[in-house]
Amino acid sequence: LGPDWASLVLPGAARICLLVLDGIGDTPRPEVGGITPLEAARTPHLDRLAREGVGGLVWPVVPGATPSSVSGHLGLLGYDPLETEIGRGAVEALGVGLDLREGEVAARANFATLSDGVVADRRAGRMPTEKTAELCQLINRETGMVDGVEVILYPVRQHRAVAVFRGEGLDPSLSDTDPGRTGEPPRPAQPLSPEAERTARLVNAYLSRVAELLRGRHPANCLLLRGFAGKPRIRPFGERFGLRGAALASYPAYRGIARALGLEVPEEPGDLRGCFEAYRRRKKDYDFFFIHYKDPDPAGEDGDFQAKVRAIERLDHALPLLLEDPPEVLAVTGDHSTPCSLRAHSWHPVPVIIHSPATWGPDAVSRFTERECARGILGRLRGVELLPLLLASSGRTRKFGT
Amino acid sequence: LGPDWASLVLPGAARICLLVLDGIGDTPRPEVGGITPLEAARTPHLDRLAREGVGGLVWPVVPGATPSSVSGHLGLLGYDPLETEIGRGAVEALGVGLDLREGEVAARANFATLSDGVVADRRAGRMPTEKTAELCQLINRETGMVDGVEVILYPVRQHRAVAVFRGEGLDPSLSDTDPGRTGEPPRPAQPLSPEAERTARLVNAYLSRVAELLRGRHPANCLLLRGFAGKPRIRPFGERFGLRGAALASYPAYRGIARALGLEVPEEPGDLRGCFEAYRRRKKDYDFFFIHYKDPDPAGEDGDFQAKVRAIERLDHALPLLLEDPPEVLAVTGDHSTPCSLRAHSWHPVPVIIHSPATWGPDAVSRFTERECARGILGRLRGVELLPLLLASSGRTRKFGT
Repeated sequence: LGPDWASLVLPGAARICLLVLDGIGDTPRPEVGGITPLEAARTPHLDRLAREGVGGLVWPVVPGATPSSVSGHLGLLGYDPLETEIGRGAVEALGVGLDLREGEVAARANFATLSDGVVADRRAGRMPTEKTAELCQLINRETGMVDGVEVILYPVRQHRAVAVFRGEGLDPSLSDTDPGRTGEPPRPAQPLSPEAERTARLVNAYLSRVAELLRGRHPANCLLLRGFAGKPRIRPFGERFGLRGAALASYPAYRGIARALGLEVPEEPGDLRGCFEAYRRRKKDYDFFFIHYKDPDPAGEDGDFQAKVRAIERLDHALPLLLEDPPEVLAVTGDHSTPCSLRAHSWHPVPVIIHSPATWGPDAVSRFTERECARGILGRLRGVELLPLLLASSGRTRKFGT
Repeated sequence: LGPDWASLVLPGAARICLLVLDGIGDTPRPEVGGITPLEAARTPHLDRLAREGVGGLVWPVVPGATPSSVSGHLGLLGYDPLETEIGRGAVEALGVGLDLREGEVAARANFATLSDGVVADRRAGRMPTEKTAELCQLINRETGMVDGVEVILYPVRQHRAVAVFRGEGLDPSLSDTDPGRTGEPPRPAQPLSPEAERTARLVNAYLSRVAELLRGRHPANCLLLRGFAGKPRIRPFGERFGLRGAALASYPAYRGIARALGLEVPEEPGDLRGCFEAYRRRKKDYDFFFIHYKDPDPAGEDGDFQAKVRAIERLDHALPLLLEDPPEVLAVTGDHSTPCSLRAHSWHPVPVIIHSPATWGPDAVSRFTERECARGILGRLRGVELLPLLLASSGRTRKFGT
């Protein structure tokens, strides 16, 4: 899709910043006068960016596809989600800062409560992170090696952890052991290809040893694994776009996606202001910053219109931190819509603005909203088409073609 | 192009209806104040759908391509016309309800008048269907088998018929025997590949026997064949989109296109009202309905602005029949434009609206016209991008990606 961008990139000092507002898109809500959260929110700084910049709407994957967090971000970061895959286990492992090398296998893990042989609570009462850390330590000490393969269990948050298997001849083509709902027993990992048979045996041996260790404990007497994945095979961001990129995200999953693409994670900010402060500290070290803001998405998933409005206003209130020493190119968009009415990710196109005063004049867009951006000069873009536009807006590309 | 939609489709009760107004798009006509037939027509029901729904413009194939009936419909029904082919003979045979099995060959047939060895009238004076039926019966009785291959001639309408060849080792790569204009002799079928040599000989033997039978008759003393085609090799609609689909069309060709894609044809309605009534009767049996309305297209081909306006107003007048028990998702669009000024199919983009109040809020579009839909949130879509949006609007897709 498109030319070999890296071959067109020139050196330069201009900085690009991609600010992703998770689940930002929405649909007009009749109960509040037929407007969307973006239309309802007071956003003087976003409004100025929209007025000075250019706008459009983004189909994060293709029209009609509802993006997952991974596929939505792949597009925005310049990778076609129809052709690029990152397994969830890899996202999780990379997200908590573990390295994942060629041949290693990672999986998402969660402590659960088993009762009479069936899963009674997939989240073990959402037990505190410290308790999970304690259990991971116990298990790593007692069950660190299985059949010559090292297994590391690493705590993430609450009942969640990540497991990494390190050894020879491993293959991630395995089914989940997590049944995905309560009332069913944990499942053995099944090989989905002949090459994964040994890995399946090994995972199941590991899990039965863990089961012994957890026997009689409460609420965490079971470990469930899902999303087995190897190191993603992806041409790194730096090679692909000729940019040194950094990810600033307070949620591990988004750091994990970024690391899978070869972006660096210089800091782990605690919140959005932390991201903006980290940007200012690191500005000289990178050409490209991906900054992730989570709050609009859970508000949409809760169907809470006012909470989504407040999440947007918090962002707008924090923006001066970023704009005091602004990047030469700033794009604001989302990885997908999460309409309050649907309480879920959706296929609706997402507004985007590109603010790059030196290279793009204003268009007809006066606010960062779905319906205003529909009038913008960018028209409709696939997610994967955005990054080349940011690259170009930074003045760092040369002509394509002889 | 796009994900494997069938793998993303969830079960559900929501119904999708795609209403295709043949040749609906047009261009502003200076003689009537610079408006299009859609802009001139009184369409209160379409207006309401446009106000409540979302709009855009569709390039049925790709920008610049003037769609045929087949390529235009392929796109709207979710098949990329650049990659999918259905021969006209197959459309014709399937359209009149004949089955076409693997290895069989079908062709469009028309009775013509030959004079001094050249075609004097390609339509044999548009002789009545009954006369055509009578000749088909005669020919089938006398010339039913040629060299071990069964040939069935089936009357369609007026001078038109369809021929189906059933036997072993047939190949449809043949040139037309219809010269396409008067003043020229019928041509022998030529093989376009070595594999079709035997079929060419067989077709020519059949036609010379038919010529003997018709000798001395008037006006039908010749049979011309064109559009040789085998059974289309297409992944059926149900497998591709996980929907059980029905086609309601009063013209055989559109039923033929739909059957080639695996849609069912539960009834053969006589007109548009018949289509809407059939929809109501069959609503519970299908997830997806394709309803075809022919009238705007011939009005455009005749260059008759007022006739096109009346065709649109007849549709609007009939719409309440459909809207009394409306589908959860209703899309209204066309397979191509047929501007009155050009009196022919054209490449101009076609307006589309999606009405799905539960999942898409209103945008800036207030009428179903070319220029209003240009302001819609859907922007510009390729025809093949529409069906995934309808699928998503029905709430029946899950997330794409890990």
